Amino acid sequence: MDMPSDLPVIRMKPKTDARRLRHGAPWVYANELVTDRRTKALAPGSLAVLEDSDRAPIALVTVNPESRIMARVLGAPDSGPIDQAWFATRFAKALALREKMFDGPFYRLIHAEADGFPGVVIDRFGDTAVIQPNAAWADLRLEPLVAALQEVTGIGNVLKNASGRARGLEGLDDVSGVLAGQAPDAPLEVQMNGATYMADLTGGQKTGLYYDQRLNHAFAARAAKGARVLDVFAHVGGFGLAALAQGATSALAVDGSAPALALAEQGAAAMGAADRFSIRQGDAFDTLEALADAGETFDVVICDPPAFAPNKQALEAGLRAYERIARLAAPLVAPGGILGLCSCSHAAELEKFRASSIRGIGRGLYGSGRDYALIHTGFAGPDHPTHPHLAESSYLKALFFRL
Amino acid sequence: MDMPSDLPVIRMKPKTDARRLRHGAPWVYANELVTDRRTKALAPGSLAVLEDSDRAPIALVTVNPESRIMARVLGAPDSGPIDQAWFATRFAKALALREKMFDGPFYRLIHAEADGFPGVVIDRFGDTAVIQPNAAWADLRLEPLVAALQEVTGIGNVLKNASGRARGLEGLDDVSGVLAGQAPDAPLEVQMNGATYMADLTGGQKTGLYYDQRLNHAFAARAAKGARVLDVFAHVGGFGLAALAQGATSALAVDGSAPALALAEQGAAAMGAADRFSIRQGDAFDTLEALADAGETFDVVICDPPAFAPNKQALEAGLRAYERIARLAAPLVAPGGILGLCSCSHAAELEKFRASSIRGIGRGLYGSGRDYALIHTGFAGPDHPTHPHLAESSYLKALFFRL
Repeated sequence: MDMPSDLPVIRMKPKTDARRLRHGAPWVYANELVTDRRTKALAPGSLAVLEDSDRAPIALVTVNPESRIMARVLGAPDSGPIDQAWFATRFAKALALREKMFDGPFYRLIHAEADGFPGVVIDRFGDTAVIQPNAAWADLRLEPLVAALQEVTGIGNVLKNASGRARGLEGLDDVSGVLAGQAPDAPLEVQMNGATYMADLTGGQKTGLYYDQRLNHAFAARAAKGARVLDVFAHVGGFGLAALAQGATSALAVDGSAPALALAEQGAAAMGAADRFSIRQGDAFDTLEALADAGETFDVVICDPPAFAPNKQALEAGLRAYERIARLAAPLVAPGGILGLCSCSHAAELEKFRASSIRGIGRGLYGSGRDYALIHTGFAGPDHPTHPHLAESSYLKALFFRL
Repeated sequence: MDMPSDLPVIRMKPKTDARRLRHGAPWVYANELVTDRRTKALAPGSLAVLEDSDRAPIALVTVNPESRIMARVLGAPDSGPIDQAWFATRFAKALALREKMFDGPFYRLIHAEADGFPGVVIDRFGDTAVIQPNAAWADLRLEPLVAALQEVTGIGNVLKNASGRARGLEGLDDVSGVLAGQAPDAPLEVQMNGATYMADLTGGQKTGLYYDQRLNHAFAARAAKGARVLDVFAHVGGFGLAALAQGATSALAVDGSAPALALAEQGAAAMGAADRFSIRQGDAFDTLEALADAGETFDVVICDPPAFAPNKQALEAGLRAYERIARLAAPLVAPGGILGLCSCSHAAELEKFRASSIRGIGRGLYGSGRDYALIHTGFAGPDHPTHPHLAESSYLKALFFRL
């Protein structure tokens, strides 16, 4: 099975752009396909051979008749079967990139389309991997996938995180569990930029860890030697602990989540930096206002909020929220200090997020006579590659200003 | 003199946007100003007080009646006089940022508007600074400017580079020279990313050095441990020597300039890496084709060409040249290797440069069955800050792909 000759065929409509697919585009939209009864009856995650309107094969694809993106490219028409060897080839390529770019085994190993795994994300925490198989084609093939993962990386423990919202559309359940080895019984220590982070992958809180900010952590930390740092929306201490590792004199982490802040404190303790680290649980906006009322200032202030503009409908409100964050944070930055503003909103593209941030800083500093300049723009790290035909979609932006 | 009360006034037309200026915009366009005979008679570099149409002062500006950007903001209306103390305050702020971000005294100290010096660029090479005073307001005040520079930084030698094309429009000559101390009688050693570069600031060739690629050099170098590196448009060895410093097994530098390559060789020798470094003088396009014909491949290939699209008229031809570079370079990258493509063209904005690069790589790899992904996007380093109201204009882009 899974060989091209056995597979159903889906066909592009006449006058659609098959060239785009031949040049590497990863998605086929429903309106590009002849959606006959047979195609519509395919179960989500089915494999098929995509043909152009002249019946020439283009690609091996996975199909979801329910989705606007009805087919996603897995490889050349004859690149199947999708077995352990198929997965192993892709894992080896993904691993080679990460081992080239990072010193230790802590990274996103698979970042969906750009690593040849549509809809699949795998994060590595040393000997433990967490898979988010948010696409049926992979969820149906977890056995060879996990076998290949272990074969290529030697990872012992493989966990499945089934909380992804896309799984419903793919007809998949939301049951997480252990796929190989065992679940860690305590938060794992993760080394990044010289800091120690605690990642709770399975505890009641599942706060996890985000690898995508690594280069931005590093940039901020470089500016934080001898600095008093304020890390807002700190989660498990991403920016604050990196700053302490580079010699910040103090870091205050603000977050709404007590479990996340507790992990941040554990990280600081593991680094021997507990005496320079403090936390403040509460609403970020309220806390920024309270700190301003108290006349507090910091040499480095970072705000890394959750996605305020997760989709186009939320864009305007989201941009206003980013502007408000910038306005409230700017006065807390001591003259000559650094303000870092982040967005992980797909819908808020770089230009719009930058304009909102600049407007907010301008308003926050208005009347003070202070000027400011943009000194750095960062994106997600190289373990979050971007598919060349999806390059518009770089979701993570980090802007650093000298104030 | 230079006090607001003594200064001429220039006034914005009714219904123009004075708010933009009050919020920090640095430029006033000719069509926004009442250009009476008195204003038109001002010499380039004259100071003036900018007023809104209601005669309320907005800013201290420098005026060039010949320019489309007729006034550039220097500060608040009462921020003069423009004397040594005025310059010293700005130098201190600029220096503080550089000392925070860099380990040694090698950086762009002043990057025009974003550092409060419209039209002025100053690069620091240890105890020697090179000023490009491409605006009359600064050229007319070099004495207090240089005195403040020396007072704040302790720099001994200050050179003037008057080759900037903007100087003609400002009514300035093109006579370079020594403003303080003396000109170095040999290329200077510059430390950056662990590499040693040779900067010839005054010799017959004046190849100088570009600091703007520092973070991109660092990114490429991290991927270059154990790699065979091809550095195209290498100049004095920017990417290649950084890669050698991080453990590349070999670096081949290609450039059209023999003097630049000679300096690159001197740098490699100073690093003790001469045995891993080689050069090839010639046209970059021809050399890329010749290397492909010879079947050569490299683990890391970087192309950092001069501005192919220096202005909007040259945009289409420039984008085609970027695409051609990408198409010729891609097949030289060994599977799993890294391709870095750079543009320093103002007119080729990120999206357009990225699209051309992706099209070129796609064509270069077409039929090979190889895929590729964008793993990093970088800009100029933090010693090249961007004025918040000129943020569209980030000229330097570097794209890194895993091939």
